[in-house]
Amino acid sequence: MNKSRLEAFSDGVIAIIITIMVLEIKVPHGEEWKDLLPLYPTVLSYIISFIYVGIYWCNHHHLLHTVKKVGPGIMWSNMHLLFWLSLIPFATAWMGDNHFAPHTLILYALLLMMCGVAFTILQQVIIKCHPSYDPAMVNVLKQQRKKALISVGLYILAIPMAFYSAVLSGSLFVLVAIIWLVPDRNIARVLEKESD
Amino acid sequence: MNKSRLEAFSDGVIAIIITIMVLEIKVPHGEEWKDLLPLYPTVLSYIISFIYVGIYWCNHHHLLHTVKKVGPGIMWSNMHLLFWLSLIPFATAWMGDNHFAPHTLILYALLLMMCGVAFTILQQVIIKCHPSYDPAMVNVLKQQRKKALISVGLYILAIPMAFYSAVLSGSLFVLVAIIWLVPDRNIARVLEKESD
Amino acid sequence: MNKSRLEAFSDGVIAIIITIMVLEIKVPHGEEWKDLLPLYPTVLSYIISFIYVGIYWCNHHHLLHTVKKVGPGIMWSNMHLLFWLSLIPFATAWMGDNHFAPHTLILYALLLMMCGVAFTILQQVIIKCHPSYDPAMVNVLKQQRKKALISVGLYILAIPMAFYSAVLSGSLFVLVAIIWLVPDRNIARVLEKESD
Amino acid sequence: MNKSRLEAFSDGVIAIIITIMVLEIKVPHGEEWKDLLPLYPTVLSYIISFIYVGIYWCNHHHLLHTVKKVGPGIMWSNMHLLFWLSLIPFATAWMGDNHFAPHTLILYALLLMMCGVAFTILQQVIIKCHPSYDPAMVNVLKQQRKKALISVGLYILAIPMAFYSAVLSGSLFVLVAIIWLVPDRNIARVLEKESD
Repeated sequence: MNKSRLEAFSDGVIAIIITIMVLEIKVPHGEEWKDLLPLYPTVLSYIISFIYVGIYWCNHHHLLHTVKKVGPGIMWSNMHLLFWLSLIPFATAWMGDNHFAPHTLILYALLLMMCGVAFTILQQVIIKCHPSYDPAMVNVLKQQRKKALISVGLYILAIPMAFYSAVLSGSLFVLVAIIWLVPDRNIARVLEKESD
Repeated sequence: MNKSRLEAFSDGVIAIIITIMVLEIKVPHGEEWKDLLPLYPTVLSYIISFIYVGIYWCNHHHLLHTVKKVGPGIMWSNMHLLFWLSLIPFATAWMGDNHFAPHTLILYALLLMMCGVAFTILQQVIIKCHPSYDPAMVNVLKQQRKKALISVGLYILAIPMAFYSAVLSGSLFVLVAIIWLVPDRNIARVLEKESD
Repeated sequence: MNKSRLEAFSDGVIAIIITIMVLEIKVPHGEEWKDLLPLYPTVLSYIISFIYVGIYWCNHHHLLHTVKKVGPGIMWSNMHLLFWLSLIPFATAWMGDNHFAPHTLILYALLLMMCGVAFTILQQVIIKCHPSYDPAMVNVLKQQRKKALISVGLYILAIPMAFYSAVLSGSLFVLVAIIWLVPDRNIARVLEKESD
Repeated sequence: MNKSRLEAFSDGVIAIIITIMVLEIKVPHGEEWKDLLPLYPTVLSYIISFIYVGIYWCNHHHLLHTVKKVGPGIMWSNMHLLFWLSLIPFATAWMGDNHFAPHTLILYALLLMMCGVAFTILQQVIIKCHPSYDPAMVNVLKQQRKKALISVGLYILAIPMAFYSAVLSGSLFVLVAIIWLVPDRNIARVLEKESD
């Protein structure tokens, strides 16, 4: 079975998720700069979610890069990941509309945690389905799991913090995003060596 | 004629169907957990429909896997299937908004039945267009038609049951989903052997 | 330059056009069958437009099948076609919401005419860019232009008729759809012979 | 790493951006021609944005045409470009709803500027990642940067002009579009020679 349709379908779903979030930035009725001001929490939550979905797309791209055959296990673990990702526009809009209120931050943290769990499951299923999986790639995935654990730790930390300070809690999400953005380069180097 | 565009177009339509359903989960005005509570029927109907559309995508993926040439017959049977699938977001939203009221459950059952009929038509057209169709694959499709018949039986059962108990009627939909999720593995094994 | 991205982009836009139309079928507030009744003009206009967009996708698929190189001429004629197609959801919703009122029928007829014109321009540009275009295919396109002319004639007829009878005017749209659905088989036969 | 998924994802996002803009043309409640009249600024802003997004898609198509390998640098510069493009539907709707009021025109100009900056960054990253980049193509990109600079100049000019005349300011956007539409042919010629 070829993986191109799995990639195309996932690309389609992720592209729609990342784009429909912008529909939550409701066009204001006024025509002045000041009418745009109340939108700042919505725009801020849009930017954070855009980066998160972008990170997931990049990691998904890397993960499926070395996949050879696609069975129902991979198809449904992938569908499971897409399910949690598809809820991000909802959580983003709830958080933005309510100015990062505690419960909305917690829902967002829990949702990102579920996305992380779903991604880890997909990784495990892929490794299990490929006994002769490239060891360098397995190493990369192990490194990613470390980062995933740190992320989950930071998400858990963000939950109680949400009741004290939305800024502190929210900056933990930014921190997680940075953790994923920066070491991406390491993975790329491994993948590059491999393709040489 | 190549089938890649048919697959790409179908992937696009199915990806949009599965993602716009999430727009029906309206963001609540309040910022507390209790404001999320009224959403449970919408979320529940979203989960069921997500799984159904996912099953259709997987089966569509398997079905087109062995297709060699695409004529107008296959193109329009496919368009016919996409038409019924495109109505799922509507039926899902009506069912979720009205807490699985009898008529909404019946509409959902009838719609799933039409999707099943459309899928069976597509199967038949594909077999007819491929005289030298792989017998193992024909066997798989025959097995699928058995499951399709059982599904239709359960949908029909769900209709009168909708008037007595939404839970019982709804759990028949879940049962159909499980029937399709589990034996998917058999098809995969056949397809795997074939590709070896 | 490869045409795969042009096809992928067009498939994406057409898939979104065909699917967002369903968002115009607003979920009714009631939970009874009778609450669905007022939706019949919206559903009817959805079905007609679904078939029209489907026909355009199929014809687009056939037309690009034999294209070898993609220059800015083809890219922008294609963009021009997508522009008019993108307005179909608007015209469909206006027509459905207003129970096929005269002016809404005329707008729909004019829009379909513009789509037809844009498609014909795309055909001409493709033929011009491919001096060694397959003569059988040129023949097919000539046949299509005949059908296009008849369609335009019927659209023009639908305009005055809209003031007398919505049913008669609307059935002209159905007639055009049938004209395009049926002889599609001829084109397929030519294309099939060619690929042998 | 293959670039096909990057192209597919970008095509998906751009296709959705170009199509959801049409949802901002709200269906009027009346059924007469005069009910369509108030829509003219929305339709006009839709047309301008459709052309701009179309130009970006074409340029993106050309730019990625010669890309050999896709690393995180290209992936994130591309994501950055998609971010700014994804805000175009919002700016378009704000401008259209408020009849091209000064501040809405300025936001639109600033957004187009950011899109241009993001596109230039993507160009630079691609050239940097491809030391053996085709010199003819580098030349084309240099030509494009000249046009980009002129565009930025015109956008800056459009800002103060927005306070005096919406027509003059808006026509600068049209002028930029024309600048990009016309010389596209040159690039195509270079690309064509290259592929020979």
